[in-house]
Amino acid sequence: MPSDACAALTPEIIERARGIRLLVSDCDGVLTDGGVYYSAAGEVSKRFHIRDGMGVERLRKHAGIDTAVVSGEVSPALKKRAEKLSISECHLGIEDKAAVLQAIAARRGLPLTALAYIGDDVNDLEAMALAGLSACPGDAFVDVREKAHIVCAAHGGHGAFREFAEILIAAGTPRPA
Amino acid sequence: MPSDACAALTPEIIERARGIRLLVSDCDGVLTDGGVYYSAAGEVSKRFHIRDGMGVERLRKHAGIDTAVVSGEVSPALKKRAEKLSISECHLGIEDKAAVLQAIAARRGLPLTALAYIGDDVNDLEAMALAGLSACPGDAFVDVREKAHIVCAAHGGHGAFREFAEILIAAGTPRPA
Amino acid sequence: MPSDACAALTPEIIERARGIRLLVSDCDGVLTDGGVYYSAAGEVSKRFHIRDGMGVERLRKHAGIDTAVVSGEVSPALKKRAEKLSISECHLGIEDKAAVLQAIAARRGLPLTALAYIGDDVNDLEAMALAGLSACPGDAFVDVREKAHIVCAAHGGHGAFREFAEILIAAGTPRPA
Amino acid sequence: MPSDACAALTPEIIERARGIRLLVSDCDGVLTDGGVYYSAAGEVSKRFHIRDGMGVERLRKHAGIDTAVVSGEVSPALKKRAEKLSISECHLGIEDKAAVLQAIAARRGLPLTALAYIGDDVNDLEAMALAGLSACPGDAFVDVREKAHIVCAAHGGHGAFREFAEILIAAGTPRPA
Repeated sequence: MPSDACAALTPEIIERARGIRLLVSDCDGVLTDGGVYYSAAGEVSKRFHIRDGMGVERLRKHAGIDTAVVSGEVSPALKKRAEKLSISECHLGIEDKAAVLQAIAARRGLPLTALAYIGDDVNDLEAMALAGLSACPGDAFVDVREKAHIVCAAHGGHGAFREFAEILIAAGTPRPA
Repeated sequence: MPSDACAALTPEIIERARGIRLLVSDCDGVLTDGGVYYSAAGEVSKRFHIRDGMGVERLRKHAGIDTAVVSGEVSPALKKRAEKLSISECHLGIEDKAAVLQAIAARRGLPLTALAYIGDDVNDLEAMALAGLSACPGDAFVDVREKAHIVCAAHGGHGAFREFAEILIAAGTPRPA
Repeated sequence: MPSDACAALTPEIIERARGIRLLVSDCDGVLTDGGVYYSAAGEVSKRFHIRDGMGVERLRKHAGIDTAVVSGEVSPALKKRAEKLSISECHLGIEDKAAVLQAIAARRGLPLTALAYIGDDVNDLEAMALAGLSACPGDAFVDVREKAHIVCAAHGGHGAFREFAEILIAAGTPRPA
Repeated sequence: MPSDACAALTPEIIERARGIRLLVSDCDGVLTDGGVYYSAAGEVSKRFHIRDGMGVERLRKHAGIDTAVVSGEVSPALKKRAEKLSISECHLGIEDKAAVLQAIAARRGLPLTALAYIGDDVNDLEAMALAGLSACPGDAFVDVREKAHIVCAAHGGHGAFREFAEILIAAGTPRPA
């Protein structure tokens, strides 16, 4: 498998990964390193990672898995990044992420077991508990690291999303017996 | 307790934490990683951390603890970040931080033992000595690390403030005997 | 030799390095740390490293080796950085990097063994396989680290390009028997 | 002594430090982490560290040591940062840093042994060799680390300048026998 972390995957987690059709991702601390850049004009920018963008593309192409973003913040930077990556579902300013997860699943006619979720803080815990498979960056808040099915080796904004994406891709790829 | 560092907390420090009603924080090197971004126009931006923002919110909601910011710099970026987090006390351009700490306590009718302080450099030492409980990021200046009650595992701008906030929240939470 | 990594170089790799006349570099994750900064206006900036710029200059001056850049992205920031470093070949928005490598070699009348390539992700693998010598930053995607002739100790945007440049310079310098 | 690195200082280095009246610093890779941020408009910003600014102030106040900056680049960001820190000597676009060092010493009527120099790359080596005391960040280019009197534990843009400044301050402070 093409990910550093895959060695630690149990058969149960691989089984869960096989059922995933949509990956829902938090933004700050997952697609970014948690940094928010402020100037005299307020929040001006966030730093995303190029290899996570490649992960969105590879999920779509090699595993037929869509990506959605759900963020507690209303960030124009995230909106632009999602557009660049052709992410169609970009939910901003969300207080109840679990409710959004359920609404997405219902609208797409998917069971919650077909949704994966990656988050980094306490306001992600409910959505993580609902999802068929949950992950967090290696530097997520401690409570989140304790609850996630998969704790990525990579940190937020430094490839954690990509690491999770590759696990999903690898789980769906037929392997030699 | 929900913080990595809590294992190292002594009963005395937990006792001090229980009395805290206001957390006063330095900005540069605590809420940021110490980085100041300059362009041809001078200082343009600073990088804050999203999970520290969540710390301000959780302190207010789960522990009834307010946050104040005291900085030696006059930073428009900090002013905007403080507004975003609904921090009402934002003292900029302060040479004598200890005096501001005393003024805040007097105005609020709080003893100094009800104020916690987190700072990272020598100009924070006097305020730290006055406060009921003091902390610093794990990468603070060496003299500060020697004097702080708590040296966070997290670095400035990478969750040190949040780590301290969670210690204060946990200290105020009744636990099973 | 002036590089931390040179101790690990085999005679075969040094032999390959001696034949290099052009160094072709990917941008994101190699010349940068993979970070892409977004604002409300979309992608606004990328972070390059000053010592990599010195590498471009030293390759030209001390080894007669030109540098070319090939990127999958169309980045105005990269264009400006390439201009600053007097890099004449800057290929942007390239889907098939291997084809560009072949075209560059043909136009310059060089065999592919005279081209070195440094990249960090799966879309660099074909170009790496064609080049006479391939390298990647120490934090490249795992598949790339497995395929590169040289895995730099330095990470992308933190001197990986410079480390590879110094290996090329050192390989061409006559040494005492 | 208030610096992590001071334990490693030999009596000879402390003796050299005692004679210093002016600290000359390179910019990129020393006052910054080597990062140069580019946008469609070219180089837009650099990241400095707040605690290095405190170092400039403390050198002046506690040791009577001035700071000068000498850079190979012509950076408006550095010019602004130097103004903010009241650094009067800011030499930009310098190819021959050693010559500037000699000119500064001559103009100020100081012997070269009264000048300290901190740099990070090969174009700093000559100036370092001239100066009475030389230092480099912990992540400086390998040749520089081999030649410097002091290799700071801190990296460029993350307190290396401050670490060197504190060594100079401590060396000039009378200590108990």
